[in-house]
Amino acid sequence: MPHIPTRDDARASWRASVLTLFPEMFPGPLGVSLSGQALAAGIWSLDTVAIRDFGIGKHRQVDDTPAGGGAGMVLRADVVGAALESTLEQRPDCPAIYLSPRGAPLTQSKARELSAGPGVILLAGRFEGLDERVIDRYGLHEISIGDYVLSGGELAAMVLIDACVRLLPGVVGAQESLSDESFWSGLLEYPQFTKPRDWQGRSIPDVLLSGDHKKIAEWRRSEAERVTRERRPELLSPESLSKAAKRGGKP
Amino acid sequence: MPHIPTRDDARASWRASVLTLFPEMFPGPLGVSLSGQALAAGIWSLDTVAIRDFGIGKHRQVDDTPAGGGAGMVLRADVVGAALESTLEQRPDCPAIYLSPRGAPLTQSKARELSAGPGVILLAGRFEGLDERVIDRYGLHEISIGDYVLSGGELAAMVLIDACVRLLPGVVGAQESLSDESFWSGLLEYPQFTKPRDWQGRSIPDVLLSGDHKKIAEWRRSEAERVTRERRPELLSPESLSKAAKRGGKP
Repeated sequence: MPHIPTRDDARASWRASVLTLFPEMFPGPLGVSLSGQALAAGIWSLDTVAIRDFGIGKHRQVDDTPAGGGAGMVLRADVVGAALESTLEQRPDCPAIYLSPRGAPLTQSKARELSAGPGVILLAGRFEGLDERVIDRYGLHEISIGDYVLSGGELAAMVLIDACVRLLPGVVGAQESLSDESFWSGLLEYPQFTKPRDWQGRSIPDVLLSGDHKKIAEWRRSEAERVTRERRPELLSPESLSKAAKRGGKP
Repeated sequence: MPHIPTRDDARASWRASVLTLFPEMFPGPLGVSLSGQALAAGIWSLDTVAIRDFGIGKHRQVDDTPAGGGAGMVLRADVVGAALESTLEQRPDCPAIYLSPRGAPLTQSKARELSAGPGVILLAGRFEGLDERVIDRYGLHEISIGDYVLSGGELAAMVLIDACVRLLPGVVGAQESLSDESFWSGLLEYPQFTKPRDWQGRSIPDVLLSGDHKKIAEWRRSEAERVTRERRPELLSPESLSKAAKRGGKP
């Protein structure tokens, strides 16, 4: 890292460009397991842009105190703007995203939409925040991975990339990609069981051992609805229930 | 890694134990920047438990096909149970969490609660899921970092750890810890600006340069409310507004 894609794989593969003060964090966990294998196979590519390279003066300053006072430091518009321009020049048609708790929540459908495109340009912030003018000037999409505060946007960028990469063709086997998807149909997953049949006095529900595929599908659908109702009732819209029904009882 | 804490630092520091099939992913990004400095300073500690070490037979099998059929593989109750027991034995009073899209959403207040405790035991899943009997048997808390599917629980574990670690005393400067907290008071952050004063024809809002602290505080509060209303109206409960008011206009 950073990997500079050739023309060929730029055409072929989904590409993530991450602007960060800590390029050494990448690929990190994304270089292992499913996403790592897909990276090695060229299904996607990753490059990092070191914001520090665009810093000002001998010390390559990237931040300054907030206008109007207050704690912490804010990333400068001119510095981040220059880093963004260098990236946008090469990838003018790619969505540029700023990861921030102020953003629109990341959802499975947003991950699906992004994974269907050419890739992403991700800006990972640090410190108190980012000069708002950069967000306006470049029309950055603000995305939040959840309602909590992280020490920086890098882990959020990795989460977004991982959620997208596993949806790329060839990354997860076709069968798996149709199941195991909480939020794919708007219901949470039904409980799973595997061998051994009996474990510490607990056995697998009889219906799952019955061999009756219709009953098994019905049980799974009803369990998925129960789990969703108990934990996330707001997901139980009429729409998600009818989607599940269309798929023949498999939530 | 894995780091085995001594009795001394077990008493002193917040500790994260992660059960995973990919211990080599850790500390990864958590070893860099804010969380990395705090790790090096002994403010928190990290150890990993390789689930594979508890696998069955020569191939150390950890998963098997789902009871009742279906795609993918499920982590076995006996294997994960043995890994959990070895960890719980050493840390009986520590909350044990399974990271899963079926879980309760991680929030800033949950992160604060966990950061105030002794630490966390985190189970990172892979494959289709985990045998439900393990969740029941050990009373695992299920937590989701967001409404999307990842290729595994490791990144989710890192996100949870990072959200907690930055709240530990001594990790973020005291001043910063009181600001920059979207979700701290239930409002999203107001826009931030810094030097230069004029950039690409865009200037910093006059009020922020006025030196009038009361007006600046009012502007920030009203901007925080505007941003929240536009993006996440569901956060604008009467409770969050009164909390913001109590803090003197600083959201």
